[in-house]
Amino acid sequence: MIIVLRPRSTPEQIDHIVKRIEELGFKAHLSQGELRTIIGVIGDESKLQMEPLAAIAGVEQVLPILKPFKLASREFHAADSVVQVGKIKVGGGYLGMIAGPCAIESYEVLDEIAGKVRAAGANILRGGAFKPRTSPYSFQGLGEKGLKILREVGDKHDMPVVTEVMDPRQVELVDRYADMFQIGARNMQNFDLLKEIGQTRRPVLLKRGMSATVKDMLMSAEYILASGNPDVVLCERGVRSFEDSTRNMLDMSSVPNVKASSHLPIIVDPSHATGRPDLIPSMSRASVAAGADGVHVEVHSCPEKSLSDGAQALLPAQYTALMSDLRRLAEVVGKTIG
Amino acid sequence: MIIVLRPRSTPEQIDHIVKRIEELGFKAHLSQGELRTIIGVIGDESKLQMEPLAAIAGVEQVLPILKPFKLASREFHAADSVVQVGKIKVGGGYLGMIAGPCAIESYEVLDEIAGKVRAAGANILRGGAFKPRTSPYSFQGLGEKGLKILREVGDKHDMPVVTEVMDPRQVELVDRYADMFQIGARNMQNFDLLKEIGQTRRPVLLKRGMSATVKDMLMSAEYILASGNPDVVLCERGVRSFEDSTRNMLDMSSVPNVKASSHLPIIVDPSHATGRPDLIPSMSRASVAAGADGVHVEVHSCPEKSLSDGAQALLPAQYTALMSDLRRLAEVVGKTIG
Amino acid sequence: MIIVLRPRSTPEQIDHIVKRIEELGFKAHLSQGELRTIIGVIGDESKLQMEPLAAIAGVEQVLPILKPFKLASREFHAADSVVQVGKIKVGGGYLGMIAGPCAIESYEVLDEIAGKVRAAGANILRGGAFKPRTSPYSFQGLGEKGLKILREVGDKHDMPVVTEVMDPRQVELVDRYADMFQIGARNMQNFDLLKEIGQTRRPVLLKRGMSATVKDMLMSAEYILASGNPDVVLCERGVRSFEDSTRNMLDMSSVPNVKASSHLPIIVDPSHATGRPDLIPSMSRASVAAGADGVHVEVHSCPEKSLSDGAQALLPAQYTALMSDLRRLAEVVGKTIG
Amino acid sequence: MIIVLRPRSTPEQIDHIVKRIEELGFKAHLSQGELRTIIGVIGDESKLQMEPLAAIAGVEQVLPILKPFKLASREFHAADSVVQVGKIKVGGGYLGMIAGPCAIESYEVLDEIAGKVRAAGANILRGGAFKPRTSPYSFQGLGEKGLKILREVGDKHDMPVVTEVMDPRQVELVDRYADMFQIGARNMQNFDLLKEIGQTRRPVLLKRGMSATVKDMLMSAEYILASGNPDVVLCERGVRSFEDSTRNMLDMSSVPNVKASSHLPIIVDPSHATGRPDLIPSMSRASVAAGADGVHVEVHSCPEKSLSDGAQALLPAQYTALMSDLRRLAEVVGKTIG
Repeated sequence: MIIVLRPRSTPEQIDHIVKRIEELGFKAHLSQGELRTIIGVIGDESKLQMEPLAAIAGVEQVLPILKPFKLASREFHAADSVVQVGKIKVGGGYLGMIAGPCAIESYEVLDEIAGKVRAAGANILRGGAFKPRTSPYSFQGLGEKGLKILREVGDKHDMPVVTEVMDPRQVELVDRYADMFQIGARNMQNFDLLKEIGQTRRPVLLKRGMSATVKDMLMSAEYILASGNPDVVLCERGVRSFEDSTRNMLDMSSVPNVKASSHLPIIVDPSHATGRPDLIPSMSRASVAAGADGVHVEVHSCPEKSLSDGAQALLPAQYTALMSDLRRLAEVVGKTIG
Repeated sequence: MIIVLRPRSTPEQIDHIVKRIEELGFKAHLSQGELRTIIGVIGDESKLQMEPLAAIAGVEQVLPILKPFKLASREFHAADSVVQVGKIKVGGGYLGMIAGPCAIESYEVLDEIAGKVRAAGANILRGGAFKPRTSPYSFQGLGEKGLKILREVGDKHDMPVVTEVMDPRQVELVDRYADMFQIGARNMQNFDLLKEIGQTRRPVLLKRGMSATVKDMLMSAEYILASGNPDVVLCERGVRSFEDSTRNMLDMSSVPNVKASSHLPIIVDPSHATGRPDLIPSMSRASVAAGADGVHVEVHSCPEKSLSDGAQALLPAQYTALMSDLRRLAEVVGKTIG
Repeated sequence: MIIVLRPRSTPEQIDHIVKRIEELGFKAHLSQGELRTIIGVIGDESKLQMEPLAAIAGVEQVLPILKPFKLASREFHAADSVVQVGKIKVGGGYLGMIAGPCAIESYEVLDEIAGKVRAAGANILRGGAFKPRTSPYSFQGLGEKGLKILREVGDKHDMPVVTEVMDPRQVELVDRYADMFQIGARNMQNFDLLKEIGQTRRPVLLKRGMSATVKDMLMSAEYILASGNPDVVLCERGVRSFEDSTRNMLDMSSVPNVKASSHLPIIVDPSHATGRPDLIPSMSRASVAAGADGVHVEVHSCPEKSLSDGAQALLPAQYTALMSDLRRLAEVVGKTIG
Repeated sequence: MIIVLRPRSTPEQIDHIVKRIEELGFKAHLSQGELRTIIGVIGDESKLQMEPLAAIAGVEQVLPILKPFKLASREFHAADSVVQVGKIKVGGGYLGMIAGPCAIESYEVLDEIAGKVRAAGANILRGGAFKPRTSPYSFQGLGEKGLKILREVGDKHDMPVVTEVMDPRQVELVDRYADMFQIGARNMQNFDLLKEIGQTRRPVLLKRGMSATVKDMLMSAEYILASGNPDVVLCERGVRSFEDSTRNMLDMSSVPNVKASSHLPIIVDPSHATGRPDLIPSMSRASVAAGADGVHVEVHSCPEKSLSDGAQALLPAQYTALMSDLRRLAEVVGKTIG
């Protein structure tokens, strides 16, 4: 950590800062520049970074040097992590192809969709039983009834299933039915939920918050890892921006950006990122080429009658065509569809 | 609701759309333009807005006409709402001046700060017992021990108290100690928490999410109102932006913007919005002049030793000077410090 | 265009609006909803869209139906445009692979870089002679001397050359040396420059502004097209965002988004978009897979001694490896490197 | 400047960096931390900051310590600057109240508006003769004819006049008619225009770019100052954001933020910042309370017939009421309306 002092800081201020650093168990290393004095703080920065050093008189800025996450970092774990979801591998060369409707609506609808996406090559089935909806008047999901349908349909088509959990009180229930928890964008910093999930033994699909930085996302993963659960798959699903012709802005560079500093797998969800079915195929192809560990796509057999987010779903036939492209690209970039 | 069709949409497509609208219990009203056909949908739009009409073949865009919130709207309740927090009024001409440390650290520290902010004119005491921290390794708050301290100190200085609740499972506990719940920015769309709080009879300070639009914030308030709790005070605390010299970007225009479409009170938190003590006084003055119903300021007697966010707190003496300015401005804009 | 009236708008207000629409040569088509009256305006919307109809008493909002650009639209020109840069084609299945240093520094340095990128497969050489620099104290480019070097080196290696023009007064000079003009992000809405370039017969590489929407970018292209120059290639180079670990946020979805509504070619510049050499290869691969018509990469043989933006350049050897990947991907997506 | 090295950087890499720093005429000061080595670079940082040190092997990040602007900084000029516009003072306790229509449309319309805003207390008249319009098909301004009208009307009502200049080739012409140049948001980084204006002796109203940081804005001011013109007034006019209910997001904190690091006056333009007449009065009051050196408001006597941006203009009567509020607030904050 580096502390930059204000111009004309007094010797008393400098002494006070050095004393404070030493009280906290660190060593201070002064460096007198032409216009500024800087103090290097030597010791375990992770213990220091939460201290309010910037509040001390005479301090202009405090510059952290190290990344604030540990268990999620490449320095801690150099090789790519592979997360096992049921019998499917995600990461380390294996692609998780997650597909399904936004919400679970009925056995029949889910069964039809699952059969088609499985045939197209999807290897994990998704569907929401608890839906985070902006409006209290919108369909909120089927709850446990939906979870049962998901489990049955997943078993029938031999696909592991992933579904969202929104409330720490639902964790136990969802744990009984799902192969993988999903934490949605709106809950990426719901820290009590992260801790609760961190105490289970199920893999987690952690979606990026609507305006979370890559570092924020890794810090949320760190919560889960630090609670004891090592199986986190990150998911880029776009962030809020000024662009008004897409639902969110897909930050494709988060894929190599995460990989540069973390060993965790990361997949891309172009459905929520763009909100436009006409852009999903192009963005799915780009995701695989960018090095993502999978693609998450909403598919519905009759989008105009779906109970949630139908307007952004692909039709099964469109998904089938897309998967054929993705298989060719996977080969070029040396990946296997788990 | 207005449905705009694609150029060259076929008569069959138009028929299908009209039929779908009528099936849903609405009337369709066609209007043939030079290059586009549009369909006005007549009926209770709030029931329609969640339907995936945009997914129907031939539809280019769907334009909602009405606001999606009701109980929070000025059309539903024309006069400014006044929310009672203990014996203090917020809204309708009364200013809620909330002050206190970020986190509750000890009885002594809180007591000292409370005495000073009370003397300066603050009328509601704040302090966090459950802290949402980006890092799992940071101080997470004193929990129930903190709540007890807050209650005692509030009673001693005759100030109602507000404190954050992060988890639906904490609601009952916090309800026993606090006069007002705070929902933090990261939980603005934690819908289960909103519903849980909506079932209590305590006023709520609902902070704007990091990248929530004004409409999103009002929709979250709608969740609480729709669950039966009418006492919501909104709080502008800045949003994420590209500007890197302040912690967030204070969207001051949200104050008149909220008032244009809602009856709910709105206060401003310049501490989190700017993250810079040197900008807090100016932004507090601007908030009162903009018509805010109060100002929320973090105050700490020794910021450099605070356990959370010390670098953005005002010193008690700075707060006292600020309150003297705010009283003069309140007079000019015709407001009373409750 | 659709005009939505406020609730409780009076018959006199409605009459006034209808009269105003008719005065402007349009027809008004009323539609009475349950809570709102809407007026469809029938006629050539492009002439209407600049009228301040929203300022009329009783109007709540004005919703345009048509896109405001014409010559740039797919409706005007259905097939993909192919832009000829020297003997190289960009668009319609042909990839423009633009490479070179940020600034032209000397004949020797440019010659060395050009030889290497040409051998790797680049087909257009870039280099700046007039540099837009945030600081007045930074290197501002070699001016005409740089243009001469660029021309000579381009000719030697048989590559057409592209270079930035910042000022309408430079257009004539640059026109004498370059095969393609570049308009930088900061000048995307320098309308006098757009008009001046629109009067030449040279192709233009138009970079997206730092916070321009896709529609804004197409409107700027429209300026050039409307001035008589049809040869515009768009360039996605990232936009400003809150993410602080990359220089900008690469909006990869702008590639299919542009193609959905325009016939103009679009390429991607991952160098400026990310500012990080370690992310450039991944983002270049993703661009080709996304359907971009080319990739623009900064390459420098000694980044640590470059006079501008060295920290984001690839080394020639890295570029050579990247081009080998891109050739394989181009084949998969059915594109030819022109 | 501080250079942070990667973990496991080699002694050879460190030697190379130190040598490079010394070659550039600086001194290197090593500091060995537990996990990272950092190098403090001692010497005139402004000369160093443009060097591509981050491109050297072994370097993880380069952290500048000093602000990159000089002439615009408070360290260079401690007291608030006062800019003289005709006989009106702006800054240092004097408020510039700029009002007028978006575009100059005719002598009659401008004369009527000027008479009313002058009577209300405005002290500088605005009006555009060259208009930057997103669409090439929109009204582009009256050009020199407009400038003549502006001059005549300004003289008649004894008000100095400000008008936009968009092209370096217009500077001489506009200089003959105006008392103050305006540089619009889209041209904030049109560096050739900044340099050209920097060579005149007229004050400049420099508007913040659509996604410019406060530092970017001060760097653009630095261009003008470094070219020899000291009379720059900054203008906050909102920035691009995800919020879709206002045209831009007014960053009110830029007012004290600029004042913390610069001596230049800064005014606020709530018309462009919000795009909503109903929010302008509240935001104008907030601006004065925040410490702005003036307010820029668009006023039109018949917004529905204005040729540009009518929907965001106040009516003269609304402006008169607003000015009465602003005079009371000016008194409270100790300012004089020049």
